[in-house]
Formats: sequence, C-alpha cells, structure tokens
Amino acid sequence: MNRLAPSRAALERYFPILTWSKTYNKDTLTSDVVAAVIVTIMLIPQSLAYALLAGLPAEMGLYASILPLVAYAIFGTSRALAVGPVAVVSLMTAAAVGNLGLATPAEYAIAAGTLAFISGAILLAMGFLRLGFLANFLSHPVIAGFITASGVLIATSQLKHIFGIKAEGHNLIGMIGSLLSHLGETSILTLLIGVFSVGFLFWVRKGLKPMLLNNGVKPRLADILAKAGPVAAVVATTLVTVIFGLNNHGVAIVGDVPMGLPPLTLPSLNGEIWSQLFVSALLISIIGFVESVSVAKTLAAKKRQRIVPDQELIGLGASNVAAAVTGGYPVTGGFARSVVNYDAGAETPAAGAYTAIGILLAALVLTPLLYFLPKATLAATIIVAVLSLVDFSILSKAWGYSKVDFAAVAATILLTLGSGVEVGVSAGVLLSIGLHLYKTSRPHVAEVGLVPNTQHFRNIKRHKVETIPGVVSLRVDESLYFANASFLEDYVADRVVCDEPIKDVILQCSAVNELDLSALESLEALNHRLKDMKINLHLSEVKGPVMDRLQRSHFLYEMTGKVYLAQWDAWQAMKAIHGSEISEPSAPESVENPSVAAD
Amino acid sequence: MNRLAPSRAALERYFPILTWSKTYNKDTLTSDVVAAVIVTIMLIPQSLAYALLAGLPAEMGLYASILPLVAYAIFGTSRALAVGPVAVVSLMTAAAVGNLGLATPAEYAIAAGTLAFISGAILLAMGFLRLGFLANFLSHPVIAGFITASGVLIATSQLKHIFGIKAEGHNLIGMIGSLLSHLGETSILTLLIGVFSVGFLFWVRKGLKPMLLNNGVKPRLADILAKAGPVAAVVATTLVTVIFGLNNHGVAIVGDVPMGLPPLTLPSLNGEIWSQLFVSALLISIIGFVESVSVAKTLAAKKRQRIVPDQELIGLGASNVAAAVTGGYPVTGGFARSVVNYDAGAETPAAGAYTAIGILLAALVLTPLLYFLPKATLAATIIVAVLSLVDFSILSKAWGYSKVDFAAVAATILLTLGSGVEVGVSAGVLLSIGLHLYKTSRPHVAEVGLVPNTQHFRNIKRHKVETIPGVVSLRVDESLYFANASFLEDYVADRVVCDEPIKDVILQCSAVNELDLSALESLEALNHRLKDMKINLHLSEVKGPVMDRLQRSHFLYEMTGKVYLAQWDAWQAMKAIHGSEISEPSAPESVENPSVAAD
Repeated sequence: MNRLAPSRAALERYFPILTWSKTYNKDTLTSDVVAAVIVTIMLIPQSLAYALLAGLPAEMGLYASILPLVAYAIFGTSRALAVGPVAVVSLMTAAAVGNLGLATPAEYAIAAGTLAFISGAILLAMGFLRLGFLANFLSHPVIAGFITASGVLIATSQLKHIFGIKAEGHNLIGMIGSLLSHLGETSILTLLIGVFSVGFLFWVRKGLKPMLLNNGVKPRLADILAKAGPVAAVVATTLVTVIFGLNNHGVAIVGDVPMGLPPLTLPSLNGEIWSQLFVSALLISIIGFVESVSVAKTLAAKKRQRIVPDQELIGLGASNVAAAVTGGYPVTGGFARSVVNYDAGAETPAAGAYTAIGILLAALVLTPLLYFLPKATLAATIIVAVLSLVDFSILSKAWGYSKVDFAAVAATILLTLGSGVEVGVSAGVLLSIGLHLYKTSRPHVAEVGLVPNTQHFRNIKRHKVETIPGVVSLRVDESLYFANASFLEDYVADRVVCDEPIKDVILQCSAVNELDLSALESLEALNHRLKDMKINLHLSEVKGPVMDRLQRSHFLYEMTGKVYLAQWDAWQAMKAIHGSEISEPSAPESVENPSVAAD
Repeated sequence: MNRLAPSRAALERYFPILTWSKTYNKDTLTSDVVAAVIVTIMLIPQSLAYALLAGLPAEMGLYASILPLVAYAIFGTSRALAVGPVAVVSLMTAAAVGNLGLATPAEYAIAAGTLAFISGAILLAMGFLRLGFLANFLSHPVIAGFITASGVLIATSQLKHIFGIKAEGHNLIGMIGSLLSHLGETSILTLLIGVFSVGFLFWVRKGLKPMLLNNGVKPRLADILAKAGPVAAVVATTLVTVIFGLNNHGVAIVGDVPMGLPPLTLPSLNGEIWSQLFVSALLISIIGFVESVSVAKTLAAKKRQRIVPDQELIGLGASNVAAAVTGGYPVTGGFARSVVNYDAGAETPAAGAYTAIGILLAALVLTPLLYFLPKATLAATIIVAVLSLVDFSILSKAWGYSKVDFAAVAATILLTLGSGVEVGVSAGVLLSIGLHLYKTSRPHVAEVGLVPNTQHFRNIKRHKVETIPGVVSLRVDESLYFANASFLEDYVADRVVCDEPIKDVILQCSAVNELDLSALESLEALNHRLKDMKINLHLSEVKGPVMDRLQRSHFLYEMTGKVYLAQWDAWQAMKAIHGSEISEPSAPESVENPSVAAD
C-alpha cells in the first residue's frame, strides 16, 4: 500500500460525503427531494430579499443559494443544515461594504464577493488549524443580544421599502430620524402593498396552518402550504403590480434580473480593500459559524448525530469560497430554513444539493417573472422573518441570573442598536472577556473550619465549625494565575495582621485548578513575608496537575510548612502542634440557606 | 461638627503624610537626611543620563527629580520609594515622542512633558476609580521578560555615545546595523573615556566596597563611597576633558545646561498630540506603576508596613503631573535608588523631599560644572545600571515550569527587541490573557471513582478506585463559563456514547467556582440531550455561591437528576438504585507519583 496516499479515515474526515453516501438509497433520496422542494419554495423569496437587505442586486441572493449549498453538501457534517444568505450576515455585509464608500453598484457587488472570499479563507484556515474553539468566546447571552438587536435594526431598515421612501442610517436613531424626515414622501400604493404583505405573512405564520388542519387538510400538505406563504405574497403582489401598472404610480419594483447560470466571478485583488474588509470578514465568519453550529448541534442532537465543529468550519469556508466565485456574497447556515429542512424530512446533506438545483432552475427560468415584484413585498418577507429573532427576554433572564451577564447583553444590544453590528458584537465579546477576567482577578476566599464530628471543612461564615487558635485555614475558590496572584498574597498578608497571634496559615487548594508562574512567584513572596513574621505556610488538597508543576519548582523546598494530602491531615497535624485548644463551634456570622449552601 | 467636612480618615487615606508626620521627630529627621544625601549623590548623574536616554536635554532629568519627589512625599504610601526618571520609562518616552516626528528639540521637550501630564492624569483617574487591580494583568514573567529586553535595548542604544558615533534604530537589529555601519567614524578619545567609565563603574559596583572594608573603612562609609562611584567618574572625566580640551578633539560633551529653578511649563493642548500619545501614556503608566509598586511592596514587607496600591496610583499620578508642570518628563519609583534609600535608613517619604532639595541645589549651583561632562560618561552610567536589570534566566525558569508562561515571556522578549517596547509589552499582556483563556476553555475533566474504604473520590486514571457500572462520575476542574460551556457539553455527550449503557451522569462540582449564563444554558442543553438518551444528570458538591445562582434559574426544576451535597451522598444513592454491582478496584491506567498526586 502506498503510505503516502491519504488514509480512508482522513479522507472521510475532510469529505463527510464519503461517509453518508455509502448508505444512500431510494428512501433517503425521496426524503431529501421532498425536503429540497419545500426549502426551495421558502428560499427563493428569502434569497432575493436578503440580497436587497445587503444592498445588492436581487440575483446575487439566488447565486448565493446554488454552488454554496453543493459545497456544504460535500464538506459539511450536519445532515439538516440549510446554507445560504441569512438576515444577520446580510446586514453585516451591508455594513462592511457600505464602509468602503464605493461609487458604483458593480464595485459594491465585487466587494461583497471579496468579503465572501476572505470570510471563506478565514473559515478554512480556522478549520485546518482546528480553531473552532474560538467561537466559544462569543457567549450565549452576547449572541442572543446581538441577534435581537440585529433583528430590530434589520426590520427598521426595511421600513423605507414599506413606505416607498428613501432613508438612510447605520444605527437605530439615524434610521428612525431619516424615516421620519422623509415620511411626507410616502407612496400610498407601496404602503398598501407593504402592509398587506406584512399582515398576510404574519397570518400565514400564525393562523393558516391551524385553519387548514381544522378544514381537514393533511398535516404535511398544510405545512407545505404555510411555508409557501411568502411565494403566494410574491405572486399576488407581482400580479397586482402588472395588472394595474403600479410601477408607473410610485411602487418600486425589483426590475431586470439577469436570466441564466451564475456568473464566474473573481474576488478583488486590491490589497487595500482586503485590509479594509478583513476585520468585518472575521466578525462575519465567527458570527456565521456560531449561528450555524448552534443550529446544527440542536438538530443533530435530536437524532443522536454528531457535529464536528472544525469540519463545519471547512464546510462553511468552502461554501463562502463557492459563493465568492459564482457571483454570491457571504453565506452561512440559517436557523429557520434548517428547521424547515429537518422537519420536512431531510436525511442527508444531499437535500441541500437538490435545493441548489431548485434555485438554479429558478435562476434559469423564473427571473423574468420577478421584474414586476414590488420591493415592499420583499421587505415584508424580511420583516416577518427577522421579528421572530427578536427576543428581549434575554435581558430579564440575564438580569435575574447574573449582573455580569446582564452587563454584557445590555452593552451588546445598546451598542448594536446605537453604533452598528460590528461595534456591538465586538464590544460584547470584549466586555464578556473583560468581566470574566475581572471576576477571576478577585476570587472568593473562604476561611474554613471543621464541621464537628466529620472530616469536612466549611466556610466559617456559613456553618458552625471548629477552629484552632493561631491557625488560619483559607480555601481559595479560583485557579491562581497572574491576574489574581497578588490579590491572594495581599489577602493573606492582611488577614494575619490581627490581634490574635497567628502561627500557621493553611491554603486549601481543592479549587485551584491551575497555578502559573506569576502565582508561584507570589506564593514564594507570601512564604517569605510570612516567614519574616514567623508564620508557617502550608498547603492542602493540591490537585495532581498542580502538584506535578510545583515539584518542578524550588518552592516546596523553600516553603516553611508542609503539603498535606487532605485538609483533615493538616488539621490533625496542627492540633498536635498547638495542643488541644480548639475553640468551641460558634454560630456563623451569617447563614444563607444553610441546608443547600454546600460551600 | 460640620458633616460636609471630610473625615480625618478620608483625609488620611488621600494624604498619607498626615499619618506619618504625626510621629515625626529628630531621629527620623536625621535618618531621612542621611538617606537623602546618599540618594542625591546617586541621582544627579542618573537624572542627567536618563534624560539623555529619553532624547531630552540633560536638565530635564534634574527637573524631573525635584517637584515629583515632593508630590510623592505628600501622596505616596511607601516609606522608602525613591521617585524620579528611570531607565525603562525613559526608553518608552523616547519611543513615544520619537513616533511623533517632531521637528525641533523644543517641541520634543513639550511632548515629553505632555506625556508626563497624560500619564499623571491616567494614574490619578485609575487611583480615584480604584483600578489598581488592572496592573495584575501584567504577569510577573511578562514584566521580567520586558525589563530584561528593555535593558538590552537601552544598553545597545548607549553604545553610540561610547563610540562617539551617530546611530539610530528602534529595535535591536536596526541599532546594531546602524552602529556597525558607522563604526568607522569612531572617536578614539571618546571610546577611551567610555570604556574607562564602564570599567570603573563595574569595578566600583563589584570590587570597591569589599576592598574598602578590607582596608578597615567602616561599612556605612564604604557604602556611601561605593554609591558615589558614578559621581567620581563624572568628576574625573569632566576634569580630563577640561584639562586636555578633549571637546575640541571629537569628544561629545553635555554643553550648556541652564542654571536656576525648574521652569513652569504647560502641557501641549493640541488634541492630535494627545490622541497620538494616549496609548503610550497608558503603557508608561501601567509599566511604571507595576515596577514601582513591586519595589514598594518588597521594601514595605521587610518592616511589616503596608502599601495601598490605589493610593500609590494617586502618589505616582501627582508626581507625573508635578513633572509635567516643572519642565520634567514621566517618572516613577526606581528599583535601585529605592533600595539605596531603604538601606541608607530612610524612615519616611520626607527623605524624598530632602532629596528634592539636594537636586534643586544641584540645579541652582552645579549646572555650569556639567558643561564639559562627556556624554560617554553618562552612557557608561546607564549601561552599568541597566545591565543589572538584564536577567535571561526567566526564560529557563518559565520553560521548566510551564510552556504557557514560557511562550508569553519569549514573545515579550523577542517582540520588545524586534519591534520596540510598546509592541513588546502589549503583545506580552495580550498573549498571557489569550493563553489563559485558551487553557480555561479546555478544562481538565477527571473521571472519578471511590477510593476503597474511604469517602474520597479520585481520578480513575491515577488511583485504584471502585466504580458503579452504568454510572459516570466526572469532576470538572474549572469554573464553567462561556469559553468552556460547550466543551463540557460535548465532552459529556461524547463520553456517554459507549458500549456500556450509561444510566446516570454525576458532575462533581467541587472546583466549579462560577457558572455563568452561557454555562447554565449549556447545562440545560446537556440535560435535554441526556434526557433524550434516557440518562439522568446529577450534580454534587456544588458550592454556596454557585448554588445560590442556580436557585435563581429554572434549571433545578428541569434537571432529570438531583443535587447531592457530597459526592459520597450521590454514590450511595446510585448504589441503592443500581444494586450492589460495584466493579472491583482495578489498577489505574497510569500512575504518576501516587504518593503525592492528590488529584
């Protein structure tokens, strides 16, 4: 066997298609095709609408829904994820490309393709370097806040199409101000179409399916009909526009959409544009990846399937590169359409490829029919879709659970609404990390004593415990590292300066998961300071990995005290030294829920 | 009593002088004056030399050693800290002001003063906001690496004065290259003076004091004479230059130094300069603060005195503002001179004020004598001073202790040498934080079992323990927060997919010091995933603060299993459910130092 040939396992890692295609049969084919038909119906108006949201020609939304889906079918690990243009990424694309101050729509389109290319390259690089874990630094509350605020921004940005007026602005205040100042130019006919579409789509979402079911329509069909709501709105408003020539009476229409195969496009090779787009591409990559993987994980868990995050990076990276070279713009896995795909019975990623064929047929055949489609209808599609993302309850949930999480969510929402998507999400990530570091830099330290008649040690402020005069036992509830190294040193140094003469300090290290070089130096300094005061420093319950590390240093030789395996051993040794003068267990200073407060 | 009047305690917090001045008497006065004389002798040549290093006129070094010392005496909490221009901050000043591309030395001087003013404002703001903890994010190894690399840079930067040539460069390679290309222009006389000064100063540092002691000189006097070495070098080389007119034969001299009181100066009010200097000022503030506080803490510990870091920020802030308005440049507490001050017997910060008087006298009287002082002598003073800071052993220490710490140190050193002080220290801080976050994002998880005949649970890979078939007990060795929330979820989900049918999973939370909203949501997701697999999720040994928080959520109601106070309680409950089928204790897979490896 040629040892240089890649092993089958390695090939299957990078090409998941090799795994699932082995068991592909007529049944899976049928399931996948049915799912593909439903997703295609849902995706056509969405693709057009999101392209509009991104400030791009409508056909780019279709192009972004063809080859990228095939690429994901080959490289992706989720069996139900439906890839394509999504609302948040479209908004981020608009913001990123809008910043460049480009003159012509053609340049704008090339920049969007370039953005997809850079984003694809970043995702691929992260995948090969197995950097999927980086996405974890986007905390759940920050994502929830970001998606909610983006939904509000997106819905607001579409109001101009509903009113048929021109308006601008990259933040909520700016948009609303611009809308109000142009409100006098409202096109009544456009507004009628817009309001009808929004109302109809909300009704389809909430009321149609139950009504159909009540009228004896089979659940599967009712489902498909409900999903086809946006298509019905598109067809109806297009027909009305054609019949009454509304485009001559102020109703903005999509206009010419080129018919045919997606074009072969190349990303811009302008270094300046690359450097201007890089940070945006990074943010889009991470946001898109996080959104996509969380959907994929949720759906996979239902069938006990597995998602490989690092391979998902490769799948999404390939999709974005595919989008870049075929006239598309950044794509990722969408929440709503993936759920539809899953519910419709998609068994393998092949369903995505069949959806691509559906969209391709639309691009080849249907585009002339889109000429008279009112932009207000597309805006209505977007508004109804994104309002389902808006959920401010994360604010109250975070407030109730932890003020730190609340601060991160609130900052993300306010900054996203006030300063745009890129500032908002960056601030959320940085604030989460900053607050986490701040918390760990001031760890909880509990002074512990023995719970009578046990070998257990508990916080003297929460429990009735025994202590030995002259001995202080402190349990540090945090790993020791540079950010809190001097905190502990100062805490202990302050604690031993008291009326009672302290002879021994025991640090119970059961929660110290790590001890870096700064913390070691701080412990050494503490040891010296205590030595100067004739106080011995002991450690207890040091974990294996931490002990391994301490043994590589000189600290254990210099330490004035000993390392005890358990706090109980340390206690017994102290008792032997300091005689039997144990203080009576006293009532704790304050007891909060003593029954459950296992400190 | 007027309730609006600040309380005495608050006044004493912000004016530590009110505390120590109460017990000031003739003895303390004598001690302080003696220390001040010695420090003054040491500080005069250093002040001139560091101003040269910062690219400023020599007198600015003197001015920076007058009013700033008085300000620190009023506001500082350390009784031995000696404030003034120091090597690293001077180098950082040169880098910061050099970046502005200013045309004239006058503009350069104003920019340096402005830098001191901004730095002072930052320090004061941090002090009032009690942000002293921010300095903790500069880890010990990063500081050690930074100081070492800076020492090398500084020494290299002074070689041009020793050789009497012109050379430039902001990094090591650039400096050496520039030195080599100008080597042909070496002034032999300058080189002689430089080499003699360096040799003499090294000898004074290492050989003079022992020799004096051997010859019967009293230790105190020997100490003072050794400290006066640089002054002797200054006097000797100045005399030689005057007598032989060496300044007419290529020896660069200090030249005119204005005589008189420090001038009253105002910082630049140019907004652009402020924004360009802000980041530099921030770095200078933090580096200066960290250096200063670590010296102050070390010296205070020897006399069981206390340093208040947030008040130190105010003391150093006031010093820098004082430097800015009296023709100085950024100052901080210096290591060497503080140790000298302490050893010479300084009892209170008043010693600093007396030193200021000494330097003031020098500025009023001695400056004309400095005209013929060769720059090579000052360069020699700097080289000998900074080489004592250079200590590459931090690299081997970090390598032996932890590769993560090593990476941070190595990056700091390489980037400081290669790209300058600001890039170096910023990279060190960011890398330390990044690596710490990376480690905590992939926590150590130990599968635990019961140590026979005890109530203790240990890692099954390190100890002989009993387990219950169908039950998995996992101890998570890290706080659960957004960066590792999905790691644990995936870890557990992967662990339960095995040949043996798992019925119960127990998470032992003894090392979980925190559980944020992301981790809670991840636990909820895990609970659902396990529920779908008909596996119960239990928790044990949840700490008080974490339990308090969980009770504010719905998780405890949704959880399929229970919360046990101790892992032992969980074990007994599992045994009752799963019968008595306990697996025999088996030899652990690998045992490292079982006697000490308390996991």
